[in-house]
Amino acid sequence: MAKKGALIVFSGPSGCGKGTILKAYQQKENPLYFSVSATTRSPREGEVDGVHYYFVTKEEFEEKIQSDGMLEYASYVGNYYGTPRQAVEEKRNEGYDVILEIEVQGALQVKKSCPDATMIFVLPPSLSVLEERLTKRGTESPETIARRLAMAKEEMKKAPLYDYIIVNGELEKAVEDFGAILQSNRLKAENQKDILEEVLRYDA
Amino acid sequence: MAKKGALIVFSGPSGCGKGTILKAYQQKENPLYFSVSATTRSPREGEVDGVHYYFVTKEEFEEKIQSDGMLEYASYVGNYYGTPRQAVEEKRNEGYDVILEIEVQGALQVKKSCPDATMIFVLPPSLSVLEERLTKRGTESPETIARRLAMAKEEMKKAPLYDYIIVNGELEKAVEDFGAILQSNRLKAENQKDILEEVLRYDA
Repeated sequence: MAKKGALIVFSGPSGCGKGTILKAYQQKENPLYFSVSATTRSPREGEVDGVHYYFVTKEEFEEKIQSDGMLEYASYVGNYYGTPRQAVEEKRNEGYDVILEIEVQGALQVKKSCPDATMIFVLPPSLSVLEERLTKRGTESPETIARRLAMAKEEMKKAPLYDYIIVNGELEKAVEDFGAILQSNRLKAENQKDILEEVLRYDA
Repeated sequence: MAKKGALIVFSGPSGCGKGTILKAYQQKENPLYFSVSATTRSPREGEVDGVHYYFVTKEEFEEKIQSDGMLEYASYVGNYYGTPRQAVEEKRNEGYDVILEIEVQGALQVKKSCPDATMIFVLPPSLSVLEERLTKRGTESPETIARRLAMAKEEMKKAPLYDYIIVNGELEKAVEDFGAILQSNRLKAENQKDILEEVLRYDA
């Protein structure tokens, strides 16, 4: 039987490089499974059920909430969005580390509903570097950038509630840090029970 | 100021390769500081105070016990042996990871007296491999080896009380595992407070 994978909650302000870290890690290491959200909004052109979202009815979603079937959820402009527990658990039981890239409020809900989740916060090396990265994108007005920076600051104040903080200064170092956390997770005594039993079974 | 180092408690049965892992790790990574024990026994020829042991009087040792100055201790053939808290804390405050290579009973005492210690248990890949390693040393009788194996089995049953279990099958993998644990330790949110404060200090 495969060893149970971890649930990795991955947060950090917009522009801190979360996606880049995950992409670089996947290119050199084992595959990660990205959690798929459920929503009650209608699929848009080209969106595939089970890939982009699980598309469900309001009744189905509310039934999941009642039966503790959502790791976290929120409603936004009249629709629900959330993370179904079942798909996450299935993938973990297959041995995959499941990644949940999610903003702070949802992340803290997951910490409650799934206490063995590993919470990682990604920090930019400084707010000025973050500002620079957001500006370089060239897609946002100065006002939007200022608002994003203020929001980043608020989010970062919640970083001490996470298990780990990675500083994304040099990408290579950040990817290595991410890998070390996942590797040490697998070495936790509760995840090594099988091998311990196996070694003890030998009749010395 | 240097970031506080970790206290790494490192246990495992005789012959499982603890020393080899630490030596290999030190050769490629940052220096580790090995905790020096205190004892009330007299120094032997060539033993240096503060290097091989801290040599103290019975009164000094008992005073340390009373004032919670010993992370763990035991008495053996009329003498005390133990780990003084102060030297460990000083080195950690200088930023060193301090290694305490110690048997299971002492290790579990440290877990109580220093709850932020990181507890690592080293497991041989199988008891038959352990037997082979002990036999290859060629220094012990079959009876001694049988006794050591039985003791190893008892010690291994305590492994679930540790934070991490490393299997020393391939040395290179074990050294990498050890490194990942130390690295992820440094990334724990409580050890990243300084950098978080620094980033938040910038007036966005």
